[in-house]
Amino acid sequence: MHRYRLTVEYDGTRYSGWQVQQNARSVQGALIDALVALVGPIGAMVGSGRTDAGVHALAQVAHVDLPDAVDPRELRAGLNDRLHHDICVLDVARAPERFHARHSAVARSYVYQITRNRGAFTKRYTWWVDQALNVGAMRRAGTSMIGMRDFAAFTEVGESARSSTKVMVDSVEIAERGQLIVVRVRASHFLRRMVRRVVGALVDVGRSELAAADVVHALEEPTTPIQYSVAPASGLFLEQVIYPGESFTTELAPALTIGAPGR
Amino acid sequence: MHRYRLTVEYDGTRYSGWQVQQNARSVQGALIDALVALVGPIGAMVGSGRTDAGVHALAQVAHVDLPDAVDPRELRAGLNDRLHHDICVLDVARAPERFHARHSAVARSYVYQITRNRGAFTKRYTWWVDQALNVGAMRRAGTSMIGMRDFAAFTEVGESARSSTKVMVDSVEIAERGQLIVVRVRASHFLRRMVRRVVGALVDVGRSELAAADVVHALEEPTTPIQYSVAPASGLFLEQVIYPGESFTTELAPALTIGAPGR
Repeated sequence: MHRYRLTVEYDGTRYSGWQVQQNARSVQGALIDALVALVGPIGAMVGSGRTDAGVHALAQVAHVDLPDAVDPRELRAGLNDRLHHDICVLDVARAPERFHARHSAVARSYVYQITRNRGAFTKRYTWWVDQALNVGAMRRAGTSMIGMRDFAAFTEVGESARSSTKVMVDSVEIAERGQLIVVRVRASHFLRRMVRRVVGALVDVGRSELAAADVVHALEEPTTPIQYSVAPASGLFLEQVIYPGESFTTELAPALTIGAPGR
Repeated sequence: MHRYRLTVEYDGTRYSGWQVQQNARSVQGALIDALVALVGPIGAMVGSGRTDAGVHALAQVAHVDLPDAVDPRELRAGLNDRLHHDICVLDVARAPERFHARHSAVARSYVYQITRNRGAFTKRYTWWVDQALNVGAMRRAGTSMIGMRDFAAFTEVGESARSSTKVMVDSVEIAERGQLIVVRVRASHFLRRMVRRVVGALVDVGRSELAAADVVHALEEPTTPIQYSVAPASGLFLEQVIYPGESFTTELAPALTIGAPGR
């Protein structure tokens, strides 16, 4: 078997998520179908992590084992010829057998886009928030999440029973770009729905429906109940997955800008 | 009757075009339905011009007569609450009775987006062109279209029988923005499919499938047959419609940028 590393961009709108499921259209399933059509039977494909239904990726990483060596450029072109236009293989590279898309990853980065203006092109890729947002207060609440923190209050119920809910958060950045507010969260790993719950809580802080102190308290006393919004999947993009020896891009750019200049 | 001017942004992907048609979903039809739901029976609605199926608008202009005076801000909010997320009313303003969205318009601007890279987010808003493009040659061919020219060779067959095919073209600009090539054409008015035919011919020049001299010849001898590509609707945006006393925005910005930073 020969291991390959795939870097994949996708618009998650039409998909039930990354992971293969029975009777549902998944990104991984589409990639497997295209690979099998090209090279015949293949080994297991493993992604760096799951993304939920409707969540997008700028650079999801997966590994797959193929029975025969292939030319990476030809494989990329062949896959893209067969895939729907909302999935794009950005890169195919030979990988050592010890490379594991999930276990080898040392950090992940997600971008979340919020817009304060309704617009004809933005609903698939943003969260429309009508109210005025205090971005300074959102930044302060975000900063309180940096470091090794227990995010049990910011994941699905039951996650704590399965594994630790402690996460090492490297950074929470919030940038304003015209009508867009872009939130970027980088961490060693993420719990289920963690980014959507974190962003929902930050937006609630921004619209004064939640105090920054409540966020701090929820991190320190994760068993105390806390009420906050969960951000919709549409605004979320898996931005980057980092492996040993690699580093994050530094520029915090929106994943998407659209509309007339200056809006 | 009280006349109002509407400025409307739309993603044309799901629509048969601007104009109301029997048994087809049109942008104008969606606006009329929302207006009637809000204020009851209305007078005629007229757009600045038709856009084809799949063509987008950053700022289409229409006028409509309403039986009673309304608050423009409330009307805009009420319409946006009722419209699907791919249509957005940007502005509602009182207009004098002599204002006519089509007849009063003195110039129109269209933007067309071409991309040389496949991408998961771009197919709805661009034309994917695989081949290398000589942008300098495209600019030279575009420049030859400026001024009063006969575009009979760049519209649907039969148009010349209906009206003059002479058009005063103000400018043809071509800008490169990362992976995107943005073409902007400004003119007094446009013939049917004219922008898609002009852009298709320019791309054929860019990939050396057509000589710039052939474009010049087609403008000078419009009855001589010329073979060229017709650009798909997806890349086309009605950018601006200009009325007396108004002026075009100067910055040539893409209508859409998407993907990881630096791609």
